[in-house]
Amino acid sequence: MSTTQAQQQAFLADFHSLSTFGATKGGGVDRQAGTLVDGQTRNWFRGLVEGHGCTVRYDRVGNQFTLVELVPGAPYIAIGSHLDSQPLGGRFDGAYGVLAGAHAALRLREAFLAGGETPLYNIVIINWFNEEGCRFKPSMMGSSVFTGKLPAEQVLATTDPNGVTVQQALESIGTIGDFSLEVAAYLEIHIEQGRSLEDDGLTIGLVESTWGANKYEFVVHGEQAHTGATEIADRSDALLGASALVVAAREIANQFTTDEHMVITSCGEFTVFPNSPVVVASRVNLLVDVRSTDPAVLAAADAELHARVAKIEQWASVRIERGAEHIWAAKDYDARGLTLAAASAESLGLPYGTVRTRAGHDSTNMKDIVPTIMLFVPSVEGISHNERELTSDPDMLAGVDLLTDLAQRLVTGELVRP
Amino acid sequence: MSTTQAQQQAFLADFHSLSTFGATKGGGVDRQAGTLVDGQTRNWFRGLVEGHGCTVRYDRVGNQFTLVELVPGAPYIAIGSHLDSQPLGGRFDGAYGVLAGAHAALRLREAFLAGGETPLYNIVIINWFNEEGCRFKPSMMGSSVFTGKLPAEQVLATTDPNGVTVQQALESIGTIGDFSLEVAAYLEIHIEQGRSLEDDGLTIGLVESTWGANKYEFVVHGEQAHTGATEIADRSDALLGASALVVAAREIANQFTTDEHMVITSCGEFTVFPNSPVVVASRVNLLVDVRSTDPAVLAAADAELHARVAKIEQWASVRIERGAEHIWAAKDYDARGLTLAAASAESLGLPYGTVRTRAGHDSTNMKDIVPTIMLFVPSVEGISHNERELTSDPDMLAGVDLLTDLAQRLVTGELVRP
Repeated sequence: MSTTQAQQQAFLADFHSLSTFGATKGGGVDRQAGTLVDGQTRNWFRGLVEGHGCTVRYDRVGNQFTLVELVPGAPYIAIGSHLDSQPLGGRFDGAYGVLAGAHAALRLREAFLAGGETPLYNIVIINWFNEEGCRFKPSMMGSSVFTGKLPAEQVLATTDPNGVTVQQALESIGTIGDFSLEVAAYLEIHIEQGRSLEDDGLTIGLVESTWGANKYEFVVHGEQAHTGATEIADRSDALLGASALVVAAREIANQFTTDEHMVITSCGEFTVFPNSPVVVASRVNLLVDVRSTDPAVLAAADAELHARVAKIEQWASVRIERGAEHIWAAKDYDARGLTLAAASAESLGLPYGTVRTRAGHDSTNMKDIVPTIMLFVPSVEGISHNERELTSDPDMLAGVDLLTDLAQRLVTGELVRP
Repeated sequence: MSTTQAQQQAFLADFHSLSTFGATKGGGVDRQAGTLVDGQTRNWFRGLVEGHGCTVRYDRVGNQFTLVELVPGAPYIAIGSHLDSQPLGGRFDGAYGVLAGAHAALRLREAFLAGGETPLYNIVIINWFNEEGCRFKPSMMGSSVFTGKLPAEQVLATTDPNGVTVQQALESIGTIGDFSLEVAAYLEIHIEQGRSLEDDGLTIGLVESTWGANKYEFVVHGEQAHTGATEIADRSDALLGASALVVAAREIANQFTTDEHMVITSCGEFTVFPNSPVVVASRVNLLVDVRSTDPAVLAAADAELHARVAKIEQWASVRIERGAEHIWAAKDYDARGLTLAAASAESLGLPYGTVRTRAGHDSTNMKDIVPTIMLFVPSVEGISHNERELTSDPDMLAGVDLLTDLAQRLVTGELVRP
């Protein structure tokens, strides 16, 4: 099944339209989950696929299902990603995968209608709710509920910094329902958000495993005081304690990274109270995460982090409370899926290699319940969660071709059978 | 001139009423400059003094003048402090001094009307606009304009984090005018915000000098990236750089403090962009200040801070920009005023000592243009800029008595003469 120039142009035109939703001055997008602009993006996508005769449904936590019926009554193969973004995020992260899934499914339906082999499965495109986890935490929220890792009630009651719940946000943009569906296998394509494909001159990355990640919410408690008048000895400065923790996290990454295994530590969110110029902070809420390819290295780095927390409590005269945690172990993707994806890439003549993903994706959740294939296309300079994020048109189109070929293999029973 | 029990009760009752404006659950107040509640507090105070026959006027930047006329046409002695507060601040900081000034002036007027010595001066109580500098920076804004250190136009155009200007804020609460006045001397009473009086068992502190303070706004510039996917080597993490700067500031305080001279460093405001859980920060805005009693020690600590900034730029691969600065040198208060205040405290039998102020006060500005006396009453445990800030009723009343006695001395020409 070869791709026509018209199909390529249609994909690029749709991607261009999609990128206008929440477009920022710097060439990125701001489509945080459950906001008005997330709602507008979801509605635009619904219009697009309904215009092609598909049916759109929502589940309790706002996951958006586009049903592409090939064989009435057959079970479903899912292709998914997410349309929400970081604030000032890139226009490819997530959005590319959802649109690629839709185009792949529509190409397949067209081919089958034109008299191809009868498939064993239908296709559902899933636009997962709140993959990014910036407005509402944690990330990968929709797929966590779908895979039974988080209760829907807990997610619906989760609030943003202004006290708005997920339920209220979803109702306000009208993308909530009571749909449910079981899927037989899962396929996701995403930009790499790293530079290994670009560095190695590859077009396709087959994701063989996730990194392990331990993500913690810490609350550093101090005592509000006057920045000028209060003696150093009398201070319990939450900002000092939290800053020392950020520095310690980086030192741990440097300390535990070897030639064989990399450790990555980060703090993305760091909020100071009361954050006034002449007030010693009473509290800082921050998130610290530690990631590694190797479970033993991750465990050692994690232990060091907790040892450092205790030392910082002493040094800065603060109390550090550990709040919620979100942990996923380094885990392999389905080996048969990897073999199938390699065969597909070879059949299309696309240069490919295996990669590991440091970032979490909805496939991180899905791979724990069904056979799952995760594909990457290159990111220029590995820039991600940034308005300057970029994947070239040829790389995007190559990814849609591969996704189409793999979806064809899946719906005709090459990985799983009903 | 002795104080009656009725006068004491009147002061405590008014202080109790004043403390209800912007009252917080924790026993403090939240009356940030130019907010609705700051306006309500100012209106309540206007009602109080107008009820006692005084006249209230505002200048261009919202300083509130209460004119207490003793001798028609005579020049003015000023007593001042501020009714604005930190978010979740204490109810004594500033407010005590304004109300004490009003009660002292009214007591004097009563005594003169009852046939005392004819004064040479009238009294003006000044409620300075925005001493705290949390919503609008810098602090001591109103007295900085009054003393010619900041142009009124610049102050009026200053915006809060939501883009509201000082001019708009003042107009919205109706406390702006075109009044102007020269004053001959300045008197201020304030809670200590330190523990030296309490530790030494004293009721009154006579402030002999300010500490020097160098206050800087820094902007740490990084590059937005994915916290999971971006390799450590590719990161330019603004939060890491800013955190290292906070830690360095504390290390400098420890390093430069000796038995003879104390160095205090602080960071009160620290704002992270975009502050999303899975995004490496692109920018952090923070304020760092360095204070010391000794100009040479302050200069050395300041030089070390700037050396550390350069090292942190290297270590964290960030660029650190120095924005606005606000610097005041360690400076003595008027020596004759200090002698007069000591005589006054002795005449009332109040245990007193000399202290230095680490915190800035409006008197820090006023002392540079007119003879100025600054008095402290004790703060329990030195707690300040905190809802738990506390000064006892007897200490407050002793302060009002001293302020009354000193004001009497000033209006009868003991410090300056027309």
